[in-house]
Amino acid sequence: MPTLGLDLGGTKIMAVLVEDGQIVKKGKKSTPRTGGPEDVLDAMAVAVHKVDPDHTATAIGVGVPGPVMPGSGVLSIASNLPDWDHDVDVAAGLSSRCGGRPVVVDNDVNVGTLAEARVGAGQGVDNLLGVFMGTGVGAGLVLDGRLRQGPRGVAGEIGHVYVNFAEFDRAVVGRGELEDYAGRRMMEARARARHSDGEATSLIDLVGDDRMKSSTWEKALDRGDSLAASVIDEAAEAMAAALASAIALVDIELIVLGGGMAERLGESFRADLEGRIAARSFAGISAPVRRAALGDTGGALGAAFLMEPQG
Amino acid sequence: MPTLGLDLGGTKIMAVLVEDGQIVKKGKKSTPRTGGPEDVLDAMAVAVHKVDPDHTATAIGVGVPGPVMPGSGVLSIASNLPDWDHDVDVAAGLSSRCGGRPVVVDNDVNVGTLAEARVGAGQGVDNLLGVFMGTGVGAGLVLDGRLRQGPRGVAGEIGHVYVNFAEFDRAVVGRGELEDYAGRRMMEARARARHSDGEATSLIDLVGDDRMKSSTWEKALDRGDSLAASVIDEAAEAMAAALASAIALVDIELIVLGGGMAERLGESFRADLEGRIAARSFAGISAPVRRAALGDTGGALGAAFLMEPQG
Repeated sequence: MPTLGLDLGGTKIMAVLVEDGQIVKKGKKSTPRTGGPEDVLDAMAVAVHKVDPDHTATAIGVGVPGPVMPGSGVLSIASNLPDWDHDVDVAAGLSSRCGGRPVVVDNDVNVGTLAEARVGAGQGVDNLLGVFMGTGVGAGLVLDGRLRQGPRGVAGEIGHVYVNFAEFDRAVVGRGELEDYAGRRMMEARARARHSDGEATSLIDLVGDDRMKSSTWEKALDRGDSLAASVIDEAAEAMAAALASAIALVDIELIVLGGGMAERLGESFRADLEGRIAARSFAGISAPVRRAALGDTGGALGAAFLMEPQG
Repeated sequence: MPTLGLDLGGTKIMAVLVEDGQIVKKGKKSTPRTGGPEDVLDAMAVAVHKVDPDHTATAIGVGVPGPVMPGSGVLSIASNLPDWDHDVDVAAGLSSRCGGRPVVVDNDVNVGTLAEARVGAGQGVDNLLGVFMGTGVGAGLVLDGRLRQGPRGVAGEIGHVYVNFAEFDRAVVGRGELEDYAGRRMMEARARARHSDGEATSLIDLVGDDRMKSSTWEKALDRGDSLAASVIDEAAEAMAAALASAIALVDIELIVLGGGMAERLGESFRADLEGRIAARSFAGISAPVRRAALGDTGGALGAAFLMEPQG
């Protein structure tokens, strides 16, 4: 019996039809940039219809860009979706648009981690953390073989771990959280602040006033840009601190590293990060870092897995 | 049927006989300062015999000052026990000294947290972190009602969480871990370094070259010592960062605060810490801080609970 998985992102909605743990059909639809949650729900229903016009899937799993209280189906806040600053029952709204089929909702990074644990880079490992570097930094936790959601649905918010407590109320950029060093948006803010202070960088030559993408950073590194290298070095050090901390606090056996920024930085960044984590490990107990294997359909695939029994 | 719990500390071994979740008898024995693990095991057997001379307890639980691989019964390293720098099978060694009764071993902070969760400050809460401030800083995690040990037995090592990644290889004291700011040993090192640099402090007047105890800090605060207040302020800020991080990463509903240092700093420190954590919380999702309720028998009591089925 097929299931259907949706990954709701700020720019696109990815939909996959899954049978026996494999994607049998996939499709996508642009996420509305204007309007509000009702328009987004309409677009999600269109994406569902695209990959499953005959309603063969009996249930629908959804990954959304924000924390979800377990069992609620409600997304309360999503900064990259239009007018999404209040409780919206995604489960009920999508179900009513899809013939009343049951809908289960979880955080997008959680479902991405679930997919990597089941059929991706984390197969066979019972205790892992999937960490995704993009605009921000998010993570999902699998403990003893089960996705950890937490009673309020915030488990895995590694971007908000404090790696520099002294910066809390006195930093020029951010407040000392991991995302303030290793999230692309804040890395851009750091680069622009240093450029304004007089440092030369090809990052600005490449984009001018446009937003820096992951590919921008890759290109700057290729050109030997020292400011870009320095910001990425600081990001790696902050990531290593947060991940070594997670290993010590929760006992994680494997880190699965994904997200657009990590993909662009590639194997050298992965190997460098793994070494930095080991250097910071407590009592020599560290964890290897593997690159995520499922690419941009991982989230939708993991959302489909939400329908299956866990553990 | 009674069970027996032992808490192996650097200065004393606490033993309790437990029936229906209550301590019915307790006793203690000094921990040998010289010799080696065999002498410590002998002393543990004496403590067992003291509270249960008639062998009424069918099984023995032990809390030890170091990480324990789940199910192994082995303590590999304990810096505050004599000559304990190699694998010692505590379970087998104590069992053979106690008529072959089964022995289960776990980390002392884990068992202290388990006791607080069952019959102490954490009763009725399924997701909590017990954090203990003493010479160092340790924690135990209860997730979904079960003690989290982790596959390598290191879960809860919050003292080794990095709260200031920039200090890793350039700090005067420590390397940016929580314990480097909020553990009594490192707090003393900070105070002495500042005193050597010319700052006046009653901490030194109180102890001279002797070790500063928790009571020393309390006395210095009572005297209005500004250096002591400043070091404690930094400890509170580091604790708040590490605990807000733990809430964001794992989703914790309650912090139970214990240990000699926290007891001395009392209610004002608890309330201050709770406020600082809330200020740093992600999306307003924080956790209250309650003071540990079981005092210095909590560890032994929790060790006795190791014999009971969990969950």
